[in-house]
Amino acid sequence: MSEPTIKIKEIEELLGLESSGDERWFLRLSNYDDAGLDSIVFAQDQSAFEKALASSAGLIFAPMGSAHKHDSRVFPVKDPKYAFALCGRWLDGFASMVIHPTALIDAAASVGYGTSIGAGAVIEAGAIVGENCFIGSNVTIYGCAEIGDYVVVQAGAVLGAMGFGYVRGEDGSYVRFPQQGRLVIEDDVEIGANTTIDRGALGETRIGRGTKIDNQVHIGHNCRIGKNVIMASQVGISGSCVVEDGAVLAGQVGLGDHVSIGPGVILGGASGVFPGKRLEGPGQMFMGVPAEPLKDYLKTIARVRRLKGRD
Amino acid sequence: MSEPTIKIKEIEELLGLESSGDERWFLRLSNYDDAGLDSIVFAQDQSAFEKALASSAGLIFAPMGSAHKHDSRVFPVKDPKYAFALCGRWLDGFASMVIHPTALIDAAASVGYGTSIGAGAVIEAGAIVGENCFIGSNVTIYGCAEIGDYVVVQAGAVLGAMGFGYVRGEDGSYVRFPQQGRLVIEDDVEIGANTTIDRGALGETRIGRGTKIDNQVHIGHNCRIGKNVIMASQVGISGSCVVEDGAVLAGQVGLGDHVSIGPGVILGGASGVFPGKRLEGPGQMFMGVPAEPLKDYLKTIARVRRLKGRD
Amino acid sequence: MSEPTIKIKEIEELLGLESSGDERWFLRLSNYDDAGLDSIVFAQDQSAFEKALASSAGLIFAPMGSAHKHDSRVFPVKDPKYAFALCGRWLDGFASMVIHPTALIDAAASVGYGTSIGAGAVIEAGAIVGENCFIGSNVTIYGCAEIGDYVVVQAGAVLGAMGFGYVRGEDGSYVRFPQQGRLVIEDDVEIGANTTIDRGALGETRIGRGTKIDNQVHIGHNCRIGKNVIMASQVGISGSCVVEDGAVLAGQVGLGDHVSIGPGVILGGASGVFPGKRLEGPGQMFMGVPAEPLKDYLKTIARVRRLKGRD
Repeated sequence: MSEPTIKIKEIEELLGLESSGDERWFLRLSNYDDAGLDSIVFAQDQSAFEKALASSAGLIFAPMGSAHKHDSRVFPVKDPKYAFALCGRWLDGFASMVIHPTALIDAAASVGYGTSIGAGAVIEAGAIVGENCFIGSNVTIYGCAEIGDYVVVQAGAVLGAMGFGYVRGEDGSYVRFPQQGRLVIEDDVEIGANTTIDRGALGETRIGRGTKIDNQVHIGHNCRIGKNVIMASQVGISGSCVVEDGAVLAGQVGLGDHVSIGPGVILGGASGVFPGKRLEGPGQMFMGVPAEPLKDYLKTIARVRRLKGRD
Repeated sequence: MSEPTIKIKEIEELLGLESSGDERWFLRLSNYDDAGLDSIVFAQDQSAFEKALASSAGLIFAPMGSAHKHDSRVFPVKDPKYAFALCGRWLDGFASMVIHPTALIDAAASVGYGTSIGAGAVIEAGAIVGENCFIGSNVTIYGCAEIGDYVVVQAGAVLGAMGFGYVRGEDGSYVRFPQQGRLVIEDDVEIGANTTIDRGALGETRIGRGTKIDNQVHIGHNCRIGKNVIMASQVGISGSCVVEDGAVLAGQVGLGDHVSIGPGVILGGASGVFPGKRLEGPGQMFMGVPAEPLKDYLKTIARVRRLKGRD
Repeated sequence: MSEPTIKIKEIEELLGLESSGDERWFLRLSNYDDAGLDSIVFAQDQSAFEKALASSAGLIFAPMGSAHKHDSRVFPVKDPKYAFALCGRWLDGFASMVIHPTALIDAAASVGYGTSIGAGAVIEAGAIVGENCFIGSNVTIYGCAEIGDYVVVQAGAVLGAMGFGYVRGEDGSYVRFPQQGRLVIEDDVEIGANTTIDRGALGETRIGRGTKIDNQVHIGHNCRIGKNVIMASQVGISGSCVVEDGAVLAGQVGLGDHVSIGPGVILGGASGVFPGKRLEGPGQMFMGVPAEPLKDYLKTIARVRRLKGRD
């Protein structure tokens, strides 16, 4: 495995720019404090840009039109933070692929080429893990799970446990409804530490391509999560919910069962949606329990607090 | 191990019916899309029943009095979903018992006959696990835990960790209060993935027979949870709470310490109860933070939103 | 390893008292029901004190000035519960240090003297764990983590996973922002089961000395948590938050990103703070979403509920 480096030429390719013929190369990404000639930093605005110039960084991604263009360290780009992230992904490509000898991969499971699996991770019989994935230590992947390519699953996550469905008998005791469906995780999904995603009861649970899920999120059985959805930590999604493409769920959001969230909807932190409801509106933000459009929520807060003057 | 099958005769026994002498048998449960002559489906109402009839299912549990009784596939029962779940439990009985060779069972722990234990699960010295349990991969059961029979513990759950109790010294630092009690899980309890239940501090924490607990639930030290209680995902129960028989706690409910929930009480999603409070009323639903009876909660929401017209 | 005992002389030393020459010794701490001549109990008030006297305990920590001083079992102290906890810490010192043979400690990780590590715990290459720590079973410590001395990490916790930071491209897909920083856990920190604490993105995440964290807490990347902070179960802290010394966060509290909590602030259960906000006031309690001072919160609740009479 060669030492990780990124050349100006490679950066230009990542950003779809013509080659300038510049032959410099860099070893790492850094913040300003820790910068050196071997590192790249980024500046998203003018104030950050001045700090970046004062650092020892070897290359500075800066907004188009930034001053100091005569400084050869300045590399103007449309979105400096995005350029920086693309370089991170490039450098990640140098990470070596390792299946830890203590990973517990059943002989009847399938693991694709280029996939790393951490110590003590369990891949049960029947599970399919794609190529170039990163599966953390102590992860459990049940046999009902089918994982795409370039999927990241951090330590302690549990994929494909039985969902929470019971039928109550006349004596008040509960019998589990069959939990025998599949879990499908599409390509480029990332899943945080100790997150749990349950298998379908009879059908499937599906997480769409490119969706990013933080730590300690719970997704119940038979949910259908779209593409490029964002779920921050401790979000809880009850069974049979639909979350469409590009939605954003902030931390601790809760959805009752059979909730439907339209494409591009944004749910603010700790907001909640009652069972069976649907929220829609690309880019529209909702807040509170039960969740209402942001401007209504802010008015509600203000009015309730104004009540204080009345007693 | 024989192939899993369920005969009409066995279904009749499960449901307490007299034998009809029908000798058909089935291999699996399914939804309508995936149905075949070898599968059983259920229809809870007339609309579902029509879909079921249009499917290729070999047997259809349908409500008493459903039309099409002349179709030999129709099996009328009092509660079709419940009958379907009972068949699921029957077929589960064919699952083979396996203690995975990498399960880490201390020589001073005890594991009953018929119990399955997943890869990487840890059963520490002193722990007692009953018969016919299913312990998932990467579960940790501390030595203070006593687990009954027919208990299901899904992957990543932690049973019997030290509770969260500290005493503050004059210098502002904290000293842990002794956490040396037991954890008792009675028969037929089911526990979800990555759930945590702490041992008692000096006494015990106890989960009553038949209680079902979803993923990522936390139950603190010295709690006493009754029988046939339901706790959906991400419920958080502080120390020394009592939850009586048949209560239902929806997702993300939070109880402060020393809360008491009466038998059969229903707490809606994300509702919260302040420390030391008691809620009562079998079948009564509470919502909000602090939780109030559902009809009061709905009035509160309506009135607050009506305020909007006043400015 | 000698049998755990604590002598009166040792108790006097723990409490900073002069030696009385009393030569009695005890084997354990207990509650009243389970007390014996070999056990110590405590009574925090007069009512408890009477129950303690009626028990079979060999020694009773009681408030200064308690009656029955002529009973040689009564040991008056300034804070009986604190004295009891100090004895617990003393007896903990007899626990034997064990690195379980199945703990997966990378050859390039460092573990200090006197540290116990549970079965299946994973300590990755580069991680540094100090002396006299207790690391539970199935814990994962990534290579970016530096753990101090006398740190307790309960089962299933994940320390040092990548944080949740992404940059959105023009096509709506997300690229991970580099997550390559460190996680520093100072001395005497205690961390609950299945808790997750992420590494810094470029800089570090830091948990200050003496801070106590319950089960299923999430702390995001680049947070700076002070000393002697308390976080109860299911607290969720977004990225780049600051929580200063001595703050107390009750269960299910949520902080948006870049929130700052001043020293000694108390946040009630399930309260939430919007991104970028700061709360201050040592000993001041805040409640609700968004969190407001307790007296305002209680007025808000009362006024909203009084609205009910108006329709």
